[in-house]
Amino acid sequence: MTEAVEVEGSPQHHARVEQLHRAYYQAWEQGDADRAVSMWLDSDDISCTYPGIPAVTGRGAVHALVTEGIELTRGAQFLFEDLSIAVAGDLARLTCVENVVMLGSLSLEAVTDLSTSRLSVTSIFRLVAPGWRLWSHHCGPILEQEAGER
Amino acid sequence: MTEAVEVEGSPQHHARVEQLHRAYYQAWEQGDADRAVSMWLDSDDISCTYPGIPAVTGRGAVHALVTEGIELTRGAQFLFEDLSIAVAGDLARLTCVENVVMLGSLSLEAVTDLSTSRLSVTSIFRLVAPGWRLWSHHCGPILEQEAGER
Repeated sequence: MTEAVEVEGSPQHHARVEQLHRAYYQAWEQGDADRAVSMWLDSDDISCTYPGIPAVTGRGAVHALVTEGIELTRGAQFLFEDLSIAVAGDLARLTCVENVVMLGSLSLEAVTDLSTSRLSVTSIFRLVAPGWRLWSHHCGPILEQEAGER
Repeated sequence: MTEAVEVEGSPQHHARVEQLHRAYYQAWEQGDADRAVSMWLDSDDISCTYPGIPAVTGRGAVHALVTEGIELTRGAQFLFEDLSIAVAGDLARLTCVENVVMLGSLSLEAVTDLSTSRLSVTSIFRLVAPGWRLWSHHCGPILEQEAGER
């Protein structure tokens, strides 16, 4: 049982958590599912939720979901906004807005007609012997004002 | 730093986390914002994401968001499916499908024409001196097949 206070030494851990977050998405952009999967906690208690679907839990199911997600989003690149990290001992939470940019085509027109979508991300990390690992990831759509006004 | 193993004694903690989850939604159904807010960790590091919006962090902002949410959903009742809880020491995660039922009218027709929406919930709880408290809540829409096929 811990008190609800934040620990000292957080700045280094903040940096490490952000580094892992960026490395995870870089592996995704590179289509490297094995590397992305290796950043999850080695536990059957992991959980992952992607836009529009219920939570998926368990090592095998999450690994399969991540691998499928990487295959389905070939060519996607990720840009982050409003990145915020909270560290409490061996626990960390990262929230951000994830902009998914599908470059699709390399024609000049495409540069001014990028298809983007904005997602809200909450990732929970735990610190274990090898370092910080993903324990929970929830990613849901951010609705544009037009959609909100329907 | 902890090993990625689950602790013994989990069954009681599973029950307590589920109890807090249900009490939280019961307070919501009853329009009791003060009671709902009291179930959050007393920390400025709390985070809450509702459908369609980016994460909101910080004690004051989260309390205001929860209070506004309760006011905007008067009459809503909540039914849960696929509730799953993982406990690791003083940390717990609950995932479920949240069915929001808006009763709206008490006419006979309304009973067969309930407006429902399905959401995917990931709640993270931390165990502190007074007991389990909400630290992070992310709730996003589950898209029906029709929507997915657009």
